[in-house]
Amino acid sequence: MSEISIVQMESLIREQLPFAVESGFILESLADGRAVVRAPYRSSFLRPGGTIAGPVMMGLADYAIYAALLSRIGLVELAVTTSFNINFLSRPGEADLIADAGIIKLGKRLAVGEVEIVSADRNNLVAHVTATYSIPPDSA
Amino acid sequence: MSEISIVQMESLIREQLPFAVESGFILESLADGRAVVRAPYRSSFLRPGGTIAGPVMMGLADYAIYAALLSRIGLVELAVTTSFNINFLSRPGEADLIADAGIIKLGKRLAVGEVEIVSADRNNLVAHVTATYSIPPDSA
Amino acid sequence: MSEISIVQMESLIREQLPFAVESGFILESLADGRAVVRAPYRSSFLRPGGTIAGPVMMGLADYAIYAALLSRIGLVELAVTTSFNINFLSRPGEADLIADAGIIKLGKRLAVGEVEIVSADRNNLVAHVTATYSIPPDSA
Amino acid sequence: MSEISIVQMESLIREQLPFAVESGFILESLADGRAVVRAPYRSSFLRPGGTIAGPVMMGLADYAIYAALLSRIGLVELAVTTSFNINFLSRPGEADLIADAGIIKLGKRLAVGEVEIVSADRNNLVAHVTATYSIPPDSA
Repeated sequence: MSEISIVQMESLIREQLPFAVESGFILESLADGRAVVRAPYRSSFLRPGGTIAGPVMMGLADYAIYAALLSRIGLVELAVTTSFNINFLSRPGEADLIADAGIIKLGKRLAVGEVEIVSADRNNLVAHVTATYSIPPDSA
Repeated sequence: MSEISIVQMESLIREQLPFAVESGFILESLADGRAVVRAPYRSSFLRPGGTIAGPVMMGLADYAIYAALLSRIGLVELAVTTSFNINFLSRPGEADLIADAGIIKLGKRLAVGEVEIVSADRNNLVAHVTATYSIPPDSA
Repeated sequence: MSEISIVQMESLIREQLPFAVESGFILESLADGRAVVRAPYRSSFLRPGGTIAGPVMMGLADYAIYAALLSRIGLVELAVTTSFNINFLSRPGEADLIADAGIIKLGKRLAVGEVEIVSADRNNLVAHVTATYSIPPDSA
Repeated sequence: MSEISIVQMESLIREQLPFAVESGFILESLADGRAVVRAPYRSSFLRPGGTIAGPVMMGLADYAIYAALLSRIGLVELAVTTSFNINFLSRPGEADLIADAGIIKLGKRLAVGEVEIVSADRNNLVAHVTATYSIPPDSA
């Protein structure tokens, strides 16, 4: 179950996360407190040396946690990221990135999410994220 | 003093950080272990509600620390971000963002940097970042 | 499989982590890249208001990841914590804390671990940790 | 100016942070949004290899930020740490540790603090911390 549909989420994203739209991110699944977002491979994501640019992974993870959060609390537009911590673990291949996000705490005022990003060709863990979100008081 | 010039750094960035180029970031100063990078205001940076998109600030901070680091170790192309922690502190205005980065540890294998991002119109602190970089063994 | 035994680990801890010994932490299991450490309940762990003191949870998580790491790389005494990030998620009960740690990246020079801490009476997630360790060059 | 005195803070600490008392931490100064806390050297703080145990530094930093926060908001007993990020930068000497904390954001519901920990003999940066605190609604 999700408090919002994939279509509603994508509509919100077009308004609120233009970076996600420009980057071609696709919301693949959305269930109660979990979301999977895919970043189809673009050569422009890669740096020389083969690393995917950090901001792309950050934008992808941010989208995935935000979707996972809204699947629990519904269309609360003003939930904002308050902190974001990412560990880069290995170089991705020339392949799609897949972000799998879950909400590990949902309080009245604060939510915490966790994301694993894998490279689709090798299925290895490319990055791990934890992030916190502030939920506006009147949305509880 | 810096081990690299602003021109060298900008040339490296065109190759390695296309995100920074597309976003219009400008390296304003580069001294031993410190760098200042400006993000000239674009309405596309803003989300409804007035928040600057997280990935923009992350990309800006990443550029600033990377420049600060190379000002100390020279043109080491393979220094990679291993972790990145950002706290979002207040909403920026419709104004340029300025990232002021410093290296707080430079070890043989690991460097740690810190960035403050301020909104140019109000001079208030918008975000605070700490990030770690891995330095390849043969560059010491 | 583990590169070291629980008895070897406990002996190392007595030398290296006196905090863990004084706090009564018990290493319950140690397998390839995973470790479970229990903190038997003490009233002295609690603050008024019912929160477990942060340093206790940090010490517990640090022990668990360190054990998980050594189960992979063996008795490398000089692996040191380089960064540590903890999110406090909910108040624990008056009960044992259990830390379940895994290594999510093992590179030649850097390892990253993740820990979930639960309160034994409720089985709810009390804290989530990611931490990075530097591995000395000659131990590879 | 501080909303509370050093004597009031120390009294609160005796109740709420027994770890700080047992560790011998001393609150040296407390001004509007800043606090300095000293950890007089104890050989029991050291690990073999010369590293100060992580939990000691975490406990010290937590105390310093908490004091800095209360110097701004007064005796709000239920402000709790929600996240804590520490980077270990260099080994301290056999000397006192000094934590210098400041509040970099004070919102209605969330505060963010930053701490630098130095080793008193060398005056070098040993660790850097950022941490967030949740402020209960009725204390604003």
